Amino acid sequence: MRFEQIHHVAYVVSDIDAALPLYTGVFGMPLEVREVLADQGVEAAALGVGRGWIELIQPLDPESSVGRFLERRGEGMHHVAFEVPDVEAALHELRMSGVDLIDQAPRRGLGGHLIAFLHPRSSGGVLTELVQSDGH
Amino acid sequence: MRFEQIHHVAYVVSDIDAALPLYTGVFGMPLEVREVLADQGVEAAALGVGRGWIELIQPLDPESSVGRFLERRGEGMHHVAFEVPDVEAALHELRMSGVDLIDQAPRRGLGGHLIAFLHPRSSGGVLTELVQSDGH
Repeated sequence: MRFEQIHHVAYVVSDIDAALPLYTGVFGMPLEVREVLADQGVEAAALGVGRGWIELIQPLDPESSVGRFLERRGEGMHHVAFEVPDVEAALHELRMSGVDLIDQAPRRGLGGHLIAFLHPRSSGGVLTELVQSDGH
Repeated sequence: MRFEQIHHVAYVVSDIDAALPLYTGVFGMPLEVREVLADQGVEAAALGVGRGWIELIQPLDPESSVGRFLERRGEGMHHVAFEVPDVEAALHELRMSGVDLIDQAPRRGLGGHLIAFLHPRSSGGVLTELVQSDGH
């Protein structure tokens, strides 16, 4: 197994509209995708930087996992996502290696990609996402 | 100005030797550079993932900035670094845009790259680093 690329780093923000000008204007990252991810209770915006994204996520519900994160820790880094060629095969291999998974099977994430999350207790305290991608 | 690429994401760890097998073995990230950065009071290890790195940083001094981070927040994400073609020119432009800088001028970081840090209060709560790089 090999994590092939950093696909994105996700930042929690309280207000995507207020945050966007810094990233699109000052940092020069074009807005590539913006959509509501209802199952995660967030709106998300993907900002292009080379082959990767910075993903801004705004909780739509203060009781969601991301809403509680924002309440507890404030704005900042939330998770890191890596490209793998096959999320389902990667989950199988990680499970065999003793890694705790949040998602036992792939599901759809931002931009329609197949994704899955690993538990931070198995990945150095960092919430880690796998993304099946051929270069968004 | 344009941030060109995610260069690395840095994770604070209490013990690089204990952390390495997860990244090199399970996640398939080769160890590319490992060195002591005396001015930051840390040892750092760069693990290759595509064009980028995951950088593990272990405080050598509990009173250093990274040592206090580990004490306060535990292991986890510390900062995100982006490639720019010219760090000095980028710092000038960011200063003109009202971004607060930690480093007013570039200095040497891991692998000998010219680097500089922006203040998290000017970058969405995320400690942000610029790296001058032609593809490490």
